[in-house]
Amino acid sequence: MSIVAVGSIAFDTVTTRYGTKERLLGGTATYFGLAASYFTDVGVLGVVGEDFTAEHENVLRRHGIDISGVQRTSGKTFFWSGEYGANVNEAKTRATELNVFANFDPELPRNYRDSEFLFLGNIDPTLQSNVRHQMNGARLVGGDTMNYWINNTHPQLLETLKVIDVLIINDAEAKSLAGETNLPRAAQKVLAMGPKALVMKHGEYGATIFFREGAFGIGHHPFRAPALPIEEVVDPTGAGDSFAGGFMGYIASQGELNREVLKRAMFYGSVMGSFAVERFGTERLQNLTREEIDARFQIFRELTHLE
Amino acid sequence: MSIVAVGSIAFDTVTTRYGTKERLLGGTATYFGLAASYFTDVGVLGVVGEDFTAEHENVLRRHGIDISGVQRTSGKTFFWSGEYGANVNEAKTRATELNVFANFDPELPRNYRDSEFLFLGNIDPTLQSNVRHQMNGARLVGGDTMNYWINNTHPQLLETLKVIDVLIINDAEAKSLAGETNLPRAAQKVLAMGPKALVMKHGEYGATIFFREGAFGIGHHPFRAPALPIEEVVDPTGAGDSFAGGFMGYIASQGELNREVLKRAMFYGSVMGSFAVERFGTERLQNLTREEIDARFQIFRELTHLE
Repeated sequence: MSIVAVGSIAFDTVTTRYGTKERLLGGTATYFGLAASYFTDVGVLGVVGEDFTAEHENVLRRHGIDISGVQRTSGKTFFWSGEYGANVNEAKTRATELNVFANFDPELPRNYRDSEFLFLGNIDPTLQSNVRHQMNGARLVGGDTMNYWINNTHPQLLETLKVIDVLIINDAEAKSLAGETNLPRAAQKVLAMGPKALVMKHGEYGATIFFREGAFGIGHHPFRAPALPIEEVVDPTGAGDSFAGGFMGYIASQGELNREVLKRAMFYGSVMGSFAVERFGTERLQNLTREEIDARFQIFRELTHLE
Repeated sequence: MSIVAVGSIAFDTVTTRYGTKERLLGGTATYFGLAASYFTDVGVLGVVGEDFTAEHENVLRRHGIDISGVQRTSGKTFFWSGEYGANVNEAKTRATELNVFANFDPELPRNYRDSEFLFLGNIDPTLQSNVRHQMNGARLVGGDTMNYWINNTHPQLLETLKVIDVLIINDAEAKSLAGETNLPRAAQKVLAMGPKALVMKHGEYGATIFFREGAFGIGHHPFRAPALPIEEVVDPTGAGDSFAGGFMGYIASQGELNREVLKRAMFYGSVMGSFAVERFGTERLQNLTREEIDARFQIFRELTHLE
C-alpha cells in the first residue's frame, strides 16, 4: 500500500446547531483514511474495543482501506463527546474516555512496512517515534500533535519532530510549540526543530505551508490555501484529519515530491476538509466521487486565482 | 481627480512591541489617500485643527493629494492613543479625543464633484449619505463602518448601505451587522442590505470579496486574498485604511468595472496593507515605488497561485 496512518479510531457524540448525533464512527485514522482513500491505497493502524462491529469495519473496507493494523482488544473503543457553539473552530469537550486507546501500542503489520508514506496522527510522541522507526524507508512522513503533548511530553516531542517531514498543526499549537505569537516567526522556529515543511491550519481561514530553506526545491515564499466559505457547517469534527488525508493522499498519488505537488496538496486537503463538515461524522466522506472532488478543486482555484 | 475619500485625519500615539511613537500623522483619509496615490489622483475630505502644520500638509501634497477639501478650524485635530499586544489584530484604546472631528460636516469642493470614485471612511452614516448625495454621478462608491454605528445609528446606516457599492468591513463588523456568526451567511445578509459587493477583512488571514448575484458580471464564487505573513509587524495602525486605498485606487486606475478588476484590487489592497504595517505610522507608505508595489503583488501571486 501507499500510505500508512496511525491514530485514533473513535466513537463521537457530537452536538452542533444542526442537532445531536450519538456514537458516530470517527477518530483520526477514520477521517484521514477515508479522505486519503480517494487518492491512493491506505492502511490504518489503530485500536478498537468490543463495541467496534463488522458494520464499522465495513465503512473502512468499502473504501479499500487495509485494517490489518487495527488491533482488537477487550474493553471499549475510545469515546469522545463534545459540542460546537457559534465558533465552529472550537469544540467544548463534554467527555473523553480513552478506553482501549489508553494502552495503544501500535505495531506495524508486515504488509505495511514497504509503504512510502506515513502519517503520524495526534498520539503520544513516543509512540509516533516507535512507528516512524518501524518505517525507516518512508519517503515522506507527515505528523500532527496537540497542546497536551507540547506541554507534557516536550522533550519526547522534540525527538519526534526530527523524524517528521511535514508537521500539520493549527495556529494555536504552532504558537505554543514555538513560544511565539507571530505566525511566520513561529513557523521559522518550528522548522528549525526538524520538519522540512510546516502546514499551519487556520480553521475557517484556510492553511499555510511554510518551507524550510531549500526543502522540496527552491522558492522563497510560503503558500496559502483558503478554506471554502461554507454556509452550512453541520459538523466540524474531523475537518483537520480530513485535510491531512487529502493532503497526504494527493502527495502519495504523485510521482514527485516537490513544492508544486505540496501546494496542490494544500488545495486537496482543503477540498476534503470542506466536504467533511457538510454532514455529521464521516457521512459525506463515505459518499464522494472523484469528479466531485475535482469539481471542488476548481472552485478553490476560482476562489484564489486571477485570470 | 479620480477618487475622493472622506474620513478622519488624526494624530496617533501608538505603542507596540517595537516601541512608542507620539502624535504620528494618521487617520483614514491619510492612510487611504497615501495608499491610493500610487495608483491614481486622490482628493481628501476631512477636518483638522490648529495643530496641523504645513509639514503635515506636505506629507499629503508630496503625493499629489488634493487637500482643498480639508477644513481647518479652531481647536485640536482628532487624537487617538492605543496599544497593541500579542494579538496585532486588536488595539487597546487608551484615549480618543474627537476634538474638531466632533463637529465635522463634510462639504465637497467644486473640483471634487466630477470624481468617478468615492470612498466613505468610517464616519457617522448620516454624513456618509450627505457626501454620497453630493456625488451622484460616481461610478463606484466604497464604504466602511464600525460597531459603534452598527449599534447606535442602525436605521441611518441601513439607508447609507443602499448607496454604497462595495462595503469594506472586518469579520466582527459583518457578523454584528448581519446578526449572524457564519461568515458566508453573514455576507449574504449584508449584500441583501444594498451593496453589490462586500469585502470582509480577516486581519492577518487576508480578506474575502463576496458578490451580489449578477453584480460586476457573472460568477458564482467569492474571492479570497491572503495577507502577507509578516515577521515584523511594527505598527498595525492604518492597515485596513491602506487596504481600502490600494483596493479603490487600483479600481480607479482601470477602465472597466468587472469582477476580474475587483479581484486584482483585492491583491493590491493586501499589498498596501502589508507595506503599511512594516513601519510606524505612514512612514512606509510615504516612501514606496510602483516597482516595489508590483514586486509585492508578484509575491501575493506566488503565495496563492498554482503553476
